[in-house]
Amino acid sequence: MADEVLLFGAWASTFSRRIEIALKLKGVEYKYFQEDLYNKSPSLLKYNPIHKKVPVLVHNGKCILESQVILEYIDETWKGYPIFPRDPYEKAIARFWSKFIDEKCLPVVFNACWGEKKEHQKAEKEATELLKYLENELGEKKYFGGEAIGYVDIVANLVAFWVGVFEEASGTTEFMTREKFPRLRNWADEFVNSSAVKRKYPSSQRQTNPLFPKSILGRRCLQIEHFTQNMHSQLVTICLLKNLGSCVSEIHYKRTNDDSVPIIMVRICFRFLTSFPCCNLSFVFLISIMNPRCLLSLMI
Amino acid sequence: MADEVLLFGAWASTFSRRIEIALKLKGVEYKYFQEDLYNKSPSLLKYNPIHKKVPVLVHNGKCILESQVILEYIDETWKGYPIFPRDPYEKAIARFWSKFIDEKCLPVVFNACWGEKKEHQKAEKEATELLKYLENELGEKKYFGGEAIGYVDIVANLVAFWVGVFEEASGTTEFMTREKFPRLRNWADEFVNSSAVKRKYPSSQRQTNPLFPKSILGRRCLQIEHFTQNMHSQLVTICLLKNLGSCVSEIHYKRTNDDSVPIIMVRICFRFLTSFPCCNLSFVFLISIMNPRCLLSLMI
Repeated sequence: MADEVLLFGAWASTFSRRIEIALKLKGVEYKYFQEDLYNKSPSLLKYNPIHKKVPVLVHNGKCILESQVILEYIDETWKGYPIFPRDPYEKAIARFWSKFIDEKCLPVVFNACWGEKKEHQKAEKEATELLKYLENELGEKKYFGGEAIGYVDIVANLVAFWVGVFEEASGTTEFMTREKFPRLRNWADEFVNSSAVKRKYPSSQRQTNPLFPKSILGRRCLQIEHFTQNMHSQLVTICLLKNLGSCVSEIHYKRTNDDSVPIIMVRICFRFLTSFPCCNLSFVFLISIMNPRCLLSLMI
Repeated sequence: MADEVLLFGAWASTFSRRIEIALKLKGVEYKYFQEDLYNKSPSLLKYNPIHKKVPVLVHNGKCILESQVILEYIDETWKGYPIFPRDPYEKAIARFWSKFIDEKCLPVVFNACWGEKKEHQKAEKEATELLKYLENELGEKKYFGGEAIGYVDIVANLVAFWVGVFEEASGTTEFMTREKFPRLRNWADEFVNSSAVKRKYPSSQRQTNPLFPKSILGRRCLQIEHFTQNMHSQLVTICLLKNLGSCVSEIHYKRTNDDSVPIIMVRICFRFLTSFPCCNLSFVFLISIMNPRCLLSLMI
């Protein structure tokens, strides 16, 4: 009997992205269920009643939770591509850095970008120090896993992709610059462009999009004011907008006067309106469908 | 060449206790280095420059950090007694509950006991809900690992021992009562009294202690006021006092008027002063040696 593998994930979740990458590396076929995190499916709530979170892997009816636990399960269940080193000591080193990323880096980087304004400088300094450890651990290797993507690389996908998103969304100075972190930036480029990872981000393939309203075609500017103060929906928006890539010429962030989460105001000016990548732009519209709590106004 | 195994730990650390239990179960001989957490040794700082924390395991010169990572390493390196189940799915279940204990239970239980007063009731309710999950997971099993102590039991040592300490130290209502958590309380008794765990707590063997000042012998009451607001030193004190066991007839906690960490005031009345377990009482004196920052006054 063929394996039945189900994955409940979310587009913007760095944690469910880990599982997608691991399954792709292993060559395991699976059925993907896109979860709306604001309206969770009965299946997700049934499989993960405690945390109610993605990712959830269901393998032949058996449910496995927590991204790092799922990665261990995948490596122990399907042989083929090795995600973990085989040597217990090397394995311990990989587990240590993965814990370091999740428990130390993630909260600090998050705080550096989204925490209270007065704490920014301190958090940025701390985030820089933590990322320096990763820079050193990387050394001259192509990936944390050596010549090939391994456990730490998969866990660090949030560093490769999200640090830029966080920085841009929060308007803080870039702390992961190429000058300060040459190895980490090269690694991020290698990782994001590797075949196992690349397809996970929306393609920038240009095509005509029949769904896009004709009325705005030919205009040179699309302004989006995203008024929500909900952090998750802001991240989703920024993440989606990042994927508009070269067609976006300006993104601005408006900060509120107090120290709370900033309001995001985005102005997108298209350089080539006749050939803009509608497939990506449609993601912007998706936000309001995916996340009905946020107020997204399109002013053309 | 025989293995050289070094463990840097701390008496009161539930995390380094895990490693001691695992090494005992595996029958691995090791050299133990007791760390003073207020004056960390150069070796600890050399081996763990990032976290500067115990436990640290050094195996033939290779250093492994983080208690859960060390437990995985121990199980993969020394065969014999199996700490983890061998089946990948059962292993994933064990890893899930261990993460649940460390990431969900520990902070909430801690908050229920030591958090701001106004938050106590909410945190207590939340802690009770979380412990209910563990109660259900235990089911009719003797241990989380089945008939024998396994990974989850070792990680949960803080639930078995420290929940009582936390409750008592903070003066909150007991939320892990035998009525509410019959299985968890039976498990805690089994675990704490098992041969691998028992010797880790100070014995209550009665003996004459030549170090104990003769001047207080024959008196019926020893009052200790522990004025420190440093949480760690309070926990150490309470933990040590708990081990005085049957000779202690009263322990009181004095709360400050604001919502900060309570000041602990302990009154120990000895029932049998001629035969009290001096070996344990000497621990009380050890506090002031171990932790010179706390002011411990003995009023006899």
